[in-house]
Amino acid sequence: MLSAKSLVKALLIREKYSRLAYHRFPRTTSQYLCSMQDEKWRVEDEVYPDFHSPPEENEDPYNLDDAPDNLDYVIKIKGGIPFVYDNKEMMELNEPRSLPYPDLETYTLDLSHVLALIADGPTKTYCHRRLNFLESKFSLHEMLNEMSEFKELKSNPHRDFYNVRKVDTHIHAAACMNQKHLLRFIKHTYQTEPDRIVAEKKGKKMTLKQVFESLHMDPYDLTVDSLDVHAGRQTFHRFDKFNSKYNPVGASELRDLYLKTENYIGGEYFARMVKEVARELEESKYQYTEPRLSIYGRSPDEWLNLAKWFIKHKVYSPNMRWIIQVPRIYDIFRSKNILPSFGKMLENIFVPLFEATINPKDHRELHLFLKYVTGFDSVDDESKHSGHMFSDKSLNPDLWTSEKNPPYSYYLYYMYANIMLLNNLRRERGMCTFLFRPHCGEAGSITHLVSAFLTADNISHGLLLKKSPVLQYLYYLAQIPIAMSPLSNNSLFLEYSKNPLREFLHKGLHVSLSTDDPMQFHYTKEALMEEYAIAAQVWKLSTCDLCEIARNSVLQSGLSDKEKQKFLGVNYCKEGPEGNDIRKTNVAQIRMAFRYETLCNELSFLSDAMRTEEISTLTK
Amino acid sequence: MLSAKSLVKALLIREKYSRLAYHRFPRTTSQYLCSMQDEKWRVEDEVYPDFHSPPEENEDPYNLDDAPDNLDYVIKIKGGIPFVYDNKEMMELNEPRSLPYPDLETYTLDLSHVLALIADGPTKTYCHRRLNFLESKFSLHEMLNEMSEFKELKSNPHRDFYNVRKVDTHIHAAACMNQKHLLRFIKHTYQTEPDRIVAEKKGKKMTLKQVFESLHMDPYDLTVDSLDVHAGRQTFHRFDKFNSKYNPVGASELRDLYLKTENYIGGEYFARMVKEVARELEESKYQYTEPRLSIYGRSPDEWLNLAKWFIKHKVYSPNMRWIIQVPRIYDIFRSKNILPSFGKMLENIFVPLFEATINPKDHRELHLFLKYVTGFDSVDDESKHSGHMFSDKSLNPDLWTSEKNPPYSYYLYYMYANIMLLNNLRRERGMCTFLFRPHCGEAGSITHLVSAFLTADNISHGLLLKKSPVLQYLYYLAQIPIAMSPLSNNSLFLEYSKNPLREFLHKGLHVSLSTDDPMQFHYTKEALMEEYAIAAQVWKLSTCDLCEIARNSVLQSGLSDKEKQKFLGVNYCKEGPEGNDIRKTNVAQIRMAFRYETLCNELSFLSDAMRTEEISTLTK
Repeated sequence: MLSAKSLVKALLIREKYSRLAYHRFPRTTSQYLCSMQDEKWRVEDEVYPDFHSPPEENEDPYNLDDAPDNLDYVIKIKGGIPFVYDNKEMMELNEPRSLPYPDLETYTLDLSHVLALIADGPTKTYCHRRLNFLESKFSLHEMLNEMSEFKELKSNPHRDFYNVRKVDTHIHAAACMNQKHLLRFIKHTYQTEPDRIVAEKKGKKMTLKQVFESLHMDPYDLTVDSLDVHAGRQTFHRFDKFNSKYNPVGASELRDLYLKTENYIGGEYFARMVKEVARELEESKYQYTEPRLSIYGRSPDEWLNLAKWFIKHKVYSPNMRWIIQVPRIYDIFRSKNILPSFGKMLENIFVPLFEATINPKDHRELHLFLKYVTGFDSVDDESKHSGHMFSDKSLNPDLWTSEKNPPYSYYLYYMYANIMLLNNLRRERGMCTFLFRPHCGEAGSITHLVSAFLTADNISHGLLLKKSPVLQYLYYLAQIPIAMSPLSNNSLFLEYSKNPLREFLHKGLHVSLSTDDPMQFHYTKEALMEEYAIAAQVWKLSTCDLCEIARNSVLQSGLSDKEKQKFLGVNYCKEGPEGNDIRKTNVAQIRMAFRYETLCNELSFLSDAMRTEEISTLTK
Repeated sequence: MLSAKSLVKALLIREKYSRLAYHRFPRTTSQYLCSMQDEKWRVEDEVYPDFHSPPEENEDPYNLDDAPDNLDYVIKIKGGIPFVYDNKEMMELNEPRSLPYPDLETYTLDLSHVLALIADGPTKTYCHRRLNFLESKFSLHEMLNEMSEFKELKSNPHRDFYNVRKVDTHIHAAACMNQKHLLRFIKHTYQTEPDRIVAEKKGKKMTLKQVFESLHMDPYDLTVDSLDVHAGRQTFHRFDKFNSKYNPVGASELRDLYLKTENYIGGEYFARMVKEVARELEESKYQYTEPRLSIYGRSPDEWLNLAKWFIKHKVYSPNMRWIIQVPRIYDIFRSKNILPSFGKMLENIFVPLFEATINPKDHRELHLFLKYVTGFDSVDDESKHSGHMFSDKSLNPDLWTSEKNPPYSYYLYYMYANIMLLNNLRRERGMCTFLFRPHCGEAGSITHLVSAFLTADNISHGLLLKKSPVLQYLYYLAQIPIAMSPLSNNSLFLEYSKNPLREFLHKGLHVSLSTDDPMQFHYTKEALMEEYAIAAQVWKLSTCDLCEIARNSVLQSGLSDKEKQKFLGVNYCKEGPEGNDIRKTNVAQIRMAFRYETLCNELSFLSDAMRTEEISTLTK
């Protein structure tokens, strides 16, 4: 197939998957795609995710009484795909409700289209040239308009880089405090409650003092060095070593006690630390964060326990929105015989969500907690190679009983399928929906970025877009948000100076800055500011650049429509300068106009190229 | 002359000048120099600067009553050199006291020795090779011992990078707050005291409100962008633009009002901001700072005014030690006819100090203030070219009446001469002495680093040591402390990634990290931590590296002997591992031993080379 046409087809594929899952797709691109198809674009056709607006100040964020009524619906996951039935009888008749069930065959077909595209020579050349053009164009823009942009910002009253809203779009809750904070907290608990029973080991209850004694250490002597949670040169290209940095003093006992939601003390210490982080954010006022909490899929109880933890310890904060991360470690659970099949893992993860959506009155805690959850993440070391090649011939999850871990794209497809159906059901019930926001392109195979191109609303990392001009250009045209963490990459996969963030930003990709793991990577109390400061210093970013990144981070986030209107302006959904309120974002309109015109230009260039291709085919 | 012998001679020259001025010279190097001369090294011959110990908690830091008695001594500056006489009669007889008067002829001879040396081919090769060797040796050390060093630190109780003492060794008081702090302060004053009379313009008194009205601005709308004090890409290689960044909103009126010690409100606002910075340091506990305050030499009153400002506004803080910076801007004052000659400028700067030293009872305020002053800095744009070549034929300062600015080395020689004599007089009286700590090697001619090699105790910047292997090696052998500010350089003279700090540190030069101007360069509230964090991230410095830099900063600083004992260990004056108390510094003994052995090795290599040269000359 011809190059421009294939690119357009790839975009249409993404649009289809986005629409099905209530993910976002940029209006401008959508309009161009319509006109290329000679269709009429209609605003009514747009879909948006629904996020719960935070409770008002006089409202109780933990109110369990407003759960909607239960329904008769029945849910059943078969072969990794959930089916919803109107009632038991319909289930027995095997007649599921008419929801857009994702079809594995179509999916693998769509996937192979994009896979073929990224390997196609002429397409590579085309995209490479367009990307080079985008970069040069920005340089020119910068030379010509830098001072005008700054002048615009200088005359913008009351708003500067410090008081524009910034969202930390990618951060793991278990590492959201910095190393010094964790150290201080450990010492504090030891000083104030040494005799509290905090653990049980082989049936024996242990006080905090005994825990430390069993580890042969005195918390008074503990330092950030002996804590040893900070990533150093030793973790570069060693994700295994990095993972073990989650164990303070190398002791998994302390990780369990301080950094987990499920333990003898019901995750109290972890909740307290998270709340301390939240208080600092609330005080700083302009910073928001989207921490990841884990659901492993070992048992269906995990969700209820997590929701109870959240409510019991009152972890809600207006400056935090929660994301659920699912580690891709089926193989570990399987080898320990915790799980019989991959299908069971999916069931454990998703059935409770469907049940809470169908019968919220029976699952009040989870129903409440889900209001503050805005998405799902898929996490683990991407550089681990998988022997299996995902296709429509792959075993279905119920039959996936071997100890081998399924490949990345397999995980992504089944997570997407479940989230998509869940969103459709929740939308029907007027409940908030979820975004799929996997880690992707941090390392490993470039095909991960293809899977995410179909299934994800936005991704974390995206480093490997460096290696594929076609994917990079597609991510540009579809304006897929990318949460980048150059300091994390610097410790794990890519030296700071080689990080493509600056290049991506210049070309117009939708990038934001995030911290990933302040505990492992950052030195100061203000991890997100450290991230911005270093990027600004090393890459000499202008104030307008920084504010553009901050604006991107709000757009990318799961903050509600109401909040986004407040932080970005009432027209934030519109694209181009119209959608920007400089008084709130401190992004120069000159910059916004440049970005908008550039995107339109690329899309119309693509449209022209497609027509030329068509004509040349006709005349051949 | 032979290469090794010339290097030794250069070191001996520096030792001589250091000794005269009560500057520091490393014991190890001194011992080797003695043995090379077949002299016996004696600990009694060592000189040390004297710094005033900070007052105890129950003592009044502003106590004006303990000034020592006046003497009959008379001071007179002739040709830029101060002469001290026992009394008026002796002055009339022109018989000055026997103090070590610096001799211009010797000085220029010594200078030319080092100047010839740095241009000498074989010496360049020798030094270049030694420096390469030092760098490779450190790499090897790192590969072999990195984990052992970290193990040592991990088992070091209670001390880590966060609670080792760090001194910000180079910072300008007028830029010691960050941009956000200044902004908030301006807004606060406007809100709380708009009707206060704060300025007088052409005889008309103006309230704060009127000042802002005359500038057509409303402080409520002010942002860090409109404040425009932050350096950006526009300041790179534009020191002139950088200097104008000291004017908030580009208005010198606001600089006068908020950032000066002398103005209508007696520098109150400036004092309040400095004190806010000091309070933060005191709370953080482990950070100290050495801010520079300006003495211009326009009038002899400047000193008294500064001392009164200090006492009136109670600016003392245990976490601050003051440095006086003298801008090299004689040409500006001369062209405005404020000064008749360069000699007069020197008189205005130094005569008040001699008078306060001789007659402290008549100059109680200045005598008190000088207790908290630990040194002098010489500041301005080094890249400005000077047409004049300093030699013993140069006009003496009294005759320097032209509008041309004297060259860098001329400034340095006369400042050194005055400080040196002042120190001798103060030592005689049991008063604290001062260090000469000029800005040097930030830009401009490499010869600046030669002048400082003789006259300075330590320098700020030192970037240009990159360009001269001979000087770099001499700075290494003499362990001359260098306060480096890579973030400042990044905005002004050299991109971060090209900064030689990491290389210097590896080779074993005595480097510390400093902020220079948080107002212009930093983003976060903790400027010094930002500096350390960025260096750590970009250069992947280890904890041991960071703690070594922090230890260097304390050594380099003007903190008193008592404080240094407390922060570094009682033996801090000793060199090598003996002088290091890991429990206080968190620097691994393995590292200390490596540094010490390496320095000894280089010195003994030099000693051997000298003997070989001698023998080969004899046998020729």
